[in-house]
Amino acid sequence: MDERRHTARLLVSCPDRHGIIAAVSGFLSDADANVLSSDQHSTDPEGGTFFMRMEFRLEGLPERRDELERAFSERVAEPLEMRWHFAYGDQRKRTAILASREEHCLLDLLWRWRRGELETDVVAVISNHPDHAQDVAGFGVPYHHVPTPAEERMLELLAGNVDVVVLARYMQILSRDFLERVAVPVINIHHSFLPAFIGAHPYRRARERGVKIIGATAHYVTEELDSGPIIEQDVGRVSHRQNVEELERIGRDIERVVLARAVAWHLQDRVLVHESRTVVF
Amino acid sequence: MDERRHTARLLVSCPDRHGIIAAVSGFLSDADANVLSSDQHSTDPEGGTFFMRMEFRLEGLPERRDELERAFSERVAEPLEMRWHFAYGDQRKRTAILASREEHCLLDLLWRWRRGELETDVVAVISNHPDHAQDVAGFGVPYHHVPTPAEERMLELLAGNVDVVVLARYMQILSRDFLERVAVPVINIHHSFLPAFIGAHPYRRARERGVKIIGATAHYVTEELDSGPIIEQDVGRVSHRQNVEELERIGRDIERVVLARAVAWHLQDRVLVHESRTVVF
Amino acid sequence: MDERRHTARLLVSCPDRHGIIAAVSGFLSDADANVLSSDQHSTDPEGGTFFMRMEFRLEGLPERRDELERAFSERVAEPLEMRWHFAYGDQRKRTAILASREEHCLLDLLWRWRRGELETDVVAVISNHPDHAQDVAGFGVPYHHVPTPAEERMLELLAGNVDVVVLARYMQILSRDFLERVAVPVINIHHSFLPAFIGAHPYRRARERGVKIIGATAHYVTEELDSGPIIEQDVGRVSHRQNVEELERIGRDIERVVLARAVAWHLQDRVLVHESRTVVF
Amino acid sequence: MDERRHTARLLVSCPDRHGIIAAVSGFLSDADANVLSSDQHSTDPEGGTFFMRMEFRLEGLPERRDELERAFSERVAEPLEMRWHFAYGDQRKRTAILASREEHCLLDLLWRWRRGELETDVVAVISNHPDHAQDVAGFGVPYHHVPTPAEERMLELLAGNVDVVVLARYMQILSRDFLERVAVPVINIHHSFLPAFIGAHPYRRARERGVKIIGATAHYVTEELDSGPIIEQDVGRVSHRQNVEELERIGRDIERVVLARAVAWHLQDRVLVHESRTVVF
Repeated sequence: MDERRHTARLLVSCPDRHGIIAAVSGFLSDADANVLSSDQHSTDPEGGTFFMRMEFRLEGLPERRDELERAFSERVAEPLEMRWHFAYGDQRKRTAILASREEHCLLDLLWRWRRGELETDVVAVISNHPDHAQDVAGFGVPYHHVPTPAEERMLELLAGNVDVVVLARYMQILSRDFLERVAVPVINIHHSFLPAFIGAHPYRRARERGVKIIGATAHYVTEELDSGPIIEQDVGRVSHRQNVEELERIGRDIERVVLARAVAWHLQDRVLVHESRTVVF
Repeated sequence: MDERRHTARLLVSCPDRHGIIAAVSGFLSDADANVLSSDQHSTDPEGGTFFMRMEFRLEGLPERRDELERAFSERVAEPLEMRWHFAYGDQRKRTAILASREEHCLLDLLWRWRRGELETDVVAVISNHPDHAQDVAGFGVPYHHVPTPAEERMLELLAGNVDVVVLARYMQILSRDFLERVAVPVINIHHSFLPAFIGAHPYRRARERGVKIIGATAHYVTEELDSGPIIEQDVGRVSHRQNVEELERIGRDIERVVLARAVAWHLQDRVLVHESRTVVF
Repeated sequence: MDERRHTARLLVSCPDRHGIIAAVSGFLSDADANVLSSDQHSTDPEGGTFFMRMEFRLEGLPERRDELERAFSERVAEPLEMRWHFAYGDQRKRTAILASREEHCLLDLLWRWRRGELETDVVAVISNHPDHAQDVAGFGVPYHHVPTPAEERMLELLAGNVDVVVLARYMQILSRDFLERVAVPVINIHHSFLPAFIGAHPYRRARERGVKIIGATAHYVTEELDSGPIIEQDVGRVSHRQNVEELERIGRDIERVVLARAVAWHLQDRVLVHESRTVVF
Repeated sequence: MDERRHTARLLVSCPDRHGIIAAVSGFLSDADANVLSSDQHSTDPEGGTFFMRMEFRLEGLPERRDELERAFSERVAEPLEMRWHFAYGDQRKRTAILASREEHCLLDLLWRWRRGELETDVVAVISNHPDHAQDVAGFGVPYHHVPTPAEERMLELLAGNVDVVVLARYMQILSRDFLERVAVPVINIHHSFLPAFIGAHPYRRARERGVKIIGATAHYVTEELDSGPIIEQDVGRVSHRQNVEELERIGRDIERVVLARAVAWHLQDRVLVHESRTVVF
């Protein structure tokens, strides 16, 4: 943990033009930072948008943050019209997990978190079902049973207290009002290969359509149902031999790894949203 | 080839009930046939539909076909209300391939056919583009350049002369009238993971939606666009780094194997259609 | 559970010849059994070995088991030189799970078992580490901490009390003597794509060799290390970006699904061993 | 093509230390180059090796190459102890393809090359079999039938005339002497998931071992058989149902895409060799 105090991630987006990498990496080099990894992407070298993520180590970073940000803003960000953000290694994001009856994604996230796979503090699990109380208690995480309608009570618990909300097979649709007031990214796992089977009962509809492959999709939640920027997807093969229950069973294994990858990448500041899509470094 | 004269595939579907496997396999055993492979599927053991495919070898089969079919009809099929079909090993299906500008699926099928991977006689390649004449000639297959509107001319070439039509990235929509008059199964490759991105420009729309996986779907053609029974699908991983042209390039590799598998399975009588879905043995 | 009393699976292997399917399905049909699913495989229709698995429902099965087995033995099995076994739906196999420090496979199996994905009674978890006691207690399963050398103590616990032993990342090599005395199938998960990287530290060696894909393999344990019949394998993509710890993390997700599939199939009597290989129905 | 004259790729490797990205990108920015893409990797930020690939566009590049290289060498490469290389967009690599009896990889490469998927001039196809002459002629590429022993004759044809040699299922082992004298990278496709099944008959041995997944591996050829740095691998699922011939058929589809990806990446200067492994950008 101590070591993390000296590392940070710099996230940048700006109109693409000559010299951006040179400007950013020159700034960090002048500050004596050691770049640990660097990723960049341009939607179009002529007139597109440029994205960058640089992870670096800088001795004495805790004392130099304000100065570093001020200098970066003046010397690099303003001239290049950048949106930018420094994420410091010792400022872990606070995560809340929302679940309904199905527990596979919830338990998988808690288990990964306990192993140290997720850089976060899980500050709350909220469910409209009482069943998961004992499981969650075993991980030492507060469990809140909030019967529907739940949004007001959830906002009391969450607003200002979390940096990201994860819907781990939470089956209620969140209102526009909730999303605005919670005011942090919300990541959902949808149990289909979007944009196929938007909405309810995707496995049943997959079975009816006779698809040979099923999937799951992790995405940021927006007002429009199942239409937010996709972070990650994966699939599994099925055949005429599987009924809906078996599709659900196969699908659970896909859902939990897809959601876990998306959450891990979000927590590592690897996911940048551009219009309705993501860049994942 | 000679050996094939003594093999056949028996395809059966009927209401599920007790004793079907015993009745069919008992019939073949009594006829001294040696079952080479057997597959069966029931949509529901209580009140569902039962499907079966048995491949067998029977010495002297060429002389015994009429007798065998008559006996099977009387003793097995009628009592069990079966739809049934014997496909004989020496009666190769006649295939016509339709293509437009893109040649990757066309050439891949011809190359597999030349290698002996497809049990068929390719009797014609038809295209609304003249470009593939030389490539197709190299395989010794008649090439017909039929400019659009092409349906009447194609029906002259195809009706009564083929057992299956393969749309190898043929970009014209076939009319209901054409499908009825050609009167054989038509297999299409759609360049998306159906039911996502039905219709035109699926790769562009996949790029716009920001999916992380693209796919291709081989299906039987019905009147309703891209909605016929799915035979096979496969997928490939993409990211923000690929533009539409690169999705198309990655997609071509998926399309050609998916179409080739679907065509090979159809030719081996492995694909049974049930309502809007397939059973693939 | 009550319903299960009336179902069974019949497993058969014998020299391939004419009429086996007819004989077995005819026997079941005469007994008024309803075949729910049927799978068969021949290593070679001329002189090979024939395998079959039939799942059936028979009203009054509990009272008719002895009679059914005696009749099957006389009328079908003896004439056809069969090895055969009836597995009854209400006779659940007893499973013991052995684990070492890593808990991901252990917890995943327990979680699936609690959900009802595994048809078994988990009668014991044994580990040479004390750490998993609380987790296992949460599932209501007896936990035995058995420090190494452990074989004698484990034999006391297991011999005669279990039908299958699962090595859920158990890192001790079991002796030939132990395997003989425990006298039930032992399923192991090896953290590589066998036969690559037999033995210790497969992820480190995969990293050193620079492979682009890693895998995991579930197999029956034999005397020869990592060389028993393979039940299931799966893989995941890696690159130069992942170090050994990240290969291990990616690998854990592969290991747990591969082991879970292998165990589920074994419990459903879907895995038949033939020489050094498996037939998985 | 004209446009390509103004683009280049800069490839760099050096001991990792502070400021490398800043130095290289600063140099290119000062030269008024527009960076089109940038990838970098460090085997270890403390004491490891740093790799970088930058693709850039520079107006007037054809006239400025000597000056650019001299300046880069003096100002950047020497102080940072770099190995470096500029690959110019209009200097296409010359490729020779070697094949034996199997033609699937050969034809697939030629077909991709004709479509424009491979940035190269295919200057020769050499085979110890005469069968592919007509197929290759259709692509307008010289075909040399060179019966074994072939190395001396092949060296006459190749030495000094090619930049890369592709073994498209060429089944002769090349001697150390040949590799030294041809003096360019040689890419091979091995029909197994290395390091499993090094050497002859991998599909037969895969069948005997009972693996559930088969694969193919593209790698640079070194003196030691099937042990050179791996560029790309991929896999496909198989079961007890496939015999050796069917594994070969499934394998062919894997082999040709794996080899095609490896060749395309090599031609785009995306593959950097580090000790016995590759970094693929």
